[in-house]
Amino acid sequence: MSTVAVVGATGVVGRELLDVLAERAFPVDQVRLLASKRSAGQTMEALGELHEIREATPDAFDGVDLALFSAGSDIAKALAPAARKAGALVVDNSSAFRMDPDCPLVVPELNGDLLASHNGIIGNPNCSTILLTMALAPLHRAGGLARVVMSSYQAVSGAGAPAIEELRAQEDAERLGEEPIANVFPTVLAHNVIPWVAGVQPDGFTVEEHKVRNETRRILALPDLPVTATCVRVPVWRAHSEAVHVELQRPVDAAAAAAAYDGFPGIRFWTDRFPTPRDAAHTNEVHVGRLRADPALPNGWALWAVMDQLRKGAALNAIQIAERAMGISVGA
Amino acid sequence: MSTVAVVGATGVVGRELLDVLAERAFPVDQVRLLASKRSAGQTMEALGELHEIREATPDAFDGVDLALFSAGSDIAKALAPAARKAGALVVDNSSAFRMDPDCPLVVPELNGDLLASHNGIIGNPNCSTILLTMALAPLHRAGGLARVVMSSYQAVSGAGAPAIEELRAQEDAERLGEEPIANVFPTVLAHNVIPWVAGVQPDGFTVEEHKVRNETRRILALPDLPVTATCVRVPVWRAHSEAVHVELQRPVDAAAAAAAYDGFPGIRFWTDRFPTPRDAAHTNEVHVGRLRADPALPNGWALWAVMDQLRKGAALNAIQIAERAMGISVGA
Repeated sequence: MSTVAVVGATGVVGRELLDVLAERAFPVDQVRLLASKRSAGQTMEALGELHEIREATPDAFDGVDLALFSAGSDIAKALAPAARKAGALVVDNSSAFRMDPDCPLVVPELNGDLLASHNGIIGNPNCSTILLTMALAPLHRAGGLARVVMSSYQAVSGAGAPAIEELRAQEDAERLGEEPIANVFPTVLAHNVIPWVAGVQPDGFTVEEHKVRNETRRILALPDLPVTATCVRVPVWRAHSEAVHVELQRPVDAAAAAAAYDGFPGIRFWTDRFPTPRDAAHTNEVHVGRLRADPALPNGWALWAVMDQLRKGAALNAIQIAERAMGISVGA
Repeated sequence: MSTVAVVGATGVVGRELLDVLAERAFPVDQVRLLASKRSAGQTMEALGELHEIREATPDAFDGVDLALFSAGSDIAKALAPAARKAGALVVDNSSAFRMDPDCPLVVPELNGDLLASHNGIIGNPNCSTILLTMALAPLHRAGGLARVVMSSYQAVSGAGAPAIEELRAQEDAERLGEEPIANVFPTVLAHNVIPWVAGVQPDGFTVEEHKVRNETRRILALPDLPVTATCVRVPVWRAHSEAVHVELQRPVDAAAAAAAYDGFPGIRFWTDRFPTPRDAAHTNEVHVGRLRADPALPNGWALWAVMDQLRKGAALNAIQIAERAMGISVGA
């Protein structure tokens, strides 16, 4: 049994981490809820009991075996080393350590073997990247990836609780004939789509699109893979989708492509109809459908992938990492 | 002055055709509203006056100079030849004549010169195709298209009035905690995205994706251009968006790419921020933004394009065709 700290416990992903710990019957002896000073002293339900929230400070990790971070890059950089020093395994959901060569960046179904040796801090990939790498891996094994073009349809919950509230308020305003107001997003998302997720970089791609490229290359161990993306926010509560068109190095026939997806760990492969965000919400799988040979690309294939980004895209993947790194055999 | 018939006058595009005729002060002497038997005898406001709706039959085109069809393929096939025989110029918004070698398929800014000779029936392209070809044309002129990958974000109004009502009813149901019901679309669209627009073909691509490929090739006069798409419905009222990644035949630098878009007829080129469907709704332009060199593709470029699909994607393009074919100089 172990003492588990959740840093950023009051956030959307923090709450999901607690739900997934409970669902998978992760062997938690004691849970420690850490958050900003503002939330400290409040109580919150977790794993069936009320707990007092403590401020996340460097000395808050005493006796902690596992620290699940979901509190942004700055807090991760400030506190993860202290947690590690206190003896905790750190799994961080921010971008702070994702490209750090000393910290593995892991999707357990794909490169979980990296967890055999690590320095105590493990990166949990960006949600769009987890979806993309999971969706690509079977095709990569079948024919070797040569080029990837992806467009995303990303849910609001990826931007946290204030984003969810903002979309709801915008829809209420619209219904009353009032002007919807945008603060969290750069413009109104209600009955709209917004073609930028995180800031734009000098090359015209956004931070999210850079993460997708860089993290995909790292997870698939293909440092030169051409990967391009357009990342778009859509008015969906939960579950990201991606339209993916790829070139492979070798021809792969339809039977081999389908066989690559069928039974792949963590994937539900749809052949009868197509998965949507509503189908994927609150599920643990990456849903892949519309797999089709794409004659417009050399050895081309296209597919549609959907995943609850709070589950496999964040909390579930983090806890799968912890289970594997700690040698815990659990799981729903 | 001319007598103008609108076939499918009661539909979403039919009403938009009447609005655009009025806005552009198209020289209409008499307007004839044609629709199904069900609507015949009802009255409807058009161009500032009430008109009785007549049933669309082969003998309804007597004295008509221009027949704007927006009533589906079957009705176009049944009635367009009769309208032409009666002496009308037919502009058809369905897919009935789009790939017919005897009928030009026209986006006036791109291939309007084809209107110098025609046989009386002119095809108005699919809305996603008008957006894509307009968005691609400047890059094509600058560097020659070699390959196109597109993902769409298509508004509900593209599926007509019942689709708009269905989304509204689904959102109402969701708010009341009731189960939303889907009839027009194959599954619930409220707070969801649906990765199929029109039926799926044996090759795994949808009818919409085939239209995009085939019509784009025809309009750009590039019969072998590799074009692939994933077409997706999103809960947006009005205005389609597309994320586009292309290979060019020749390198094009950033200044030349921007210059190709700047001032291109019918395009509003955004460089300060990015256009969204809310920005494009009720406008006549194709809005292009996020133009960026794409290092993942040979001579690669990426962009984001948005267009009101009832305007430039349907009604406006049809009336621009009529103006040019009839030698009428009007326009807002």
